[in-house]
Amino acid sequence: MNKNIQVNAAIIIIGNEILSGRTQDSNSSTIALWLNSLGVKVQEVRIIPDVEGVIVKTINVVRKKNNYVFTTGGIGPTHDDITAKSISKAFNVKYEVNKEAYKILENYYKQGEFNEGRQKMAWTPSQAKLISNPTSGAPGFIIGNVYCLPGVPSILKSMLGGLNNLISGGKPIVSHTINIRTVESEIAKSLTLVQDSNKDVEIGSYPFFKAGKSGVAIVIRSDEQSKIDICTSQILEFVNKKNIKIINRG
Amino acid sequence: MNKNIQVNAAIIIIGNEILSGRTQDSNSSTIALWLNSLGVKVQEVRIIPDVEGVIVKTINVVRKKNNYVFTTGGIGPTHDDITAKSISKAFNVKYEVNKEAYKILENYYKQGEFNEGRQKMAWTPSQAKLISNPTSGAPGFIIGNVYCLPGVPSILKSMLGGLNNLISGGKPIVSHTINIRTVESEIAKSLTLVQDSNKDVEIGSYPFFKAGKSGVAIVIRSDEQSKIDICTSQILEFVNKKNIKIINRG
Repeated sequence: MNKNIQVNAAIIIIGNEILSGRTQDSNSSTIALWLNSLGVKVQEVRIIPDVEGVIVKTINVVRKKNNYVFTTGGIGPTHDDITAKSISKAFNVKYEVNKEAYKILENYYKQGEFNEGRQKMAWTPSQAKLISNPTSGAPGFIIGNVYCLPGVPSILKSMLGGLNNLISGGKPIVSHTINIRTVESEIAKSLTLVQDSNKDVEIGSYPFFKAGKSGVAIVIRSDEQSKIDICTSQILEFVNKKNIKIINRG
Repeated sequence: MNKNIQVNAAIIIIGNEILSGRTQDSNSSTIALWLNSLGVKVQEVRIIPDVEGVIVKTINVVRKKNNYVFTTGGIGPTHDDITAKSISKAFNVKYEVNKEAYKILENYYKQGEFNEGRQKMAWTPSQAKLISNPTSGAPGFIIGNVYCLPGVPSILKSMLGGLNNLISGGKPIVSHTINIRTVESEIAKSLTLVQDSNKDVEIGSYPFFKAGKSGVAIVIRSDEQSKIDICTSQILEFVNKKNIKIINRG
């Protein structure tokens, strides 16, 4: 853990089904929450189509700007799964059978079931390291600072734990949420004052509507608990002065 | 409607709460489905933080590459709502009180309730046109080809209908989905052949798991129904030959 530096990541969601709106992405939220817990901050998410040129260009832009890049999608057996091939091009390395992946898949499937489609999932960029898949056999892979994961949310989730030791984060980002019964405009001015006197803390204000009642979630994020505590007490001070009800905190 | 050209859009989701994983984005899917119905194809989605420099740069990149750009988030009353100010900078125009927006908000709120926080929501880039908000008063705005909408999903949804007449799409993209009881690797080779002989049709293959059973959704997308029909019959041919059960189509 690099305690004093900020460690950043980008998430690239690859898939026409997300861009068309047919499928709602949940992977970026899953990966972001996991990265936060390891002290890695997600700087940007991009959702891009299954188009080789776009994947190559996007990967080459984001891998230079971030400590880590995570991709999801496009590593299955069908024609529209072109992530491994495209990432090989981005790194200018061969796209070839990964012997270790081939063995894993050969062992995973029953005799006679390791067909051509499944064999495709053993192809990776040359020299890629594998990411173990406890759910469905087919591994993900790592090349440089780019980590390629599948698009199916349940499979992706099962693979993240195996990566914990490979990610070297900064200080974990902690957060505190104060849910209050008010509307944003009632607290906007006071909250601005708190933000102005705590410039290195990220204070977000998010309106919500539940069971016909409106409220605001104030989210305070920092890599130092003491700074969160200071903001929290300043916020609670104006909340109490204004007689605003605190719904809960956590 | 420009029947013979492809009309593209980018969606920019602005908000730290999405990047941190705290909130799962659903707006990009909502906007993409709506745009599809109008004949506009979403080329890319980017999720970016509430940081002025990043918003300015991102907007200036995507507005040149796309017919339309839609942003969500950051147009409320609090300190972290900096979309309108940032977009003004991107277009190099003044960020100022929009008189029409001011009137709308003044009428919307009861006397004495149109406070400083709420007045902030009347600020837009100079010369911006307004997007009517039937749910909560505060309008969105349009400048150039950039359409700025709020982040709260229910409010955003209520505002899209009012934009229908302003969007000039190409041919609407239609799709047909065939859900079958198989695994991707069983059909990968046959599906590749269909894709190869129908290069201008987008064929996607998406595995799913429901009630312990696995299946594959084949999604065929094109702006010509006749092309979808040809692909569908070719796919059904190999599906039937392989004795694969068709779960449903639609």
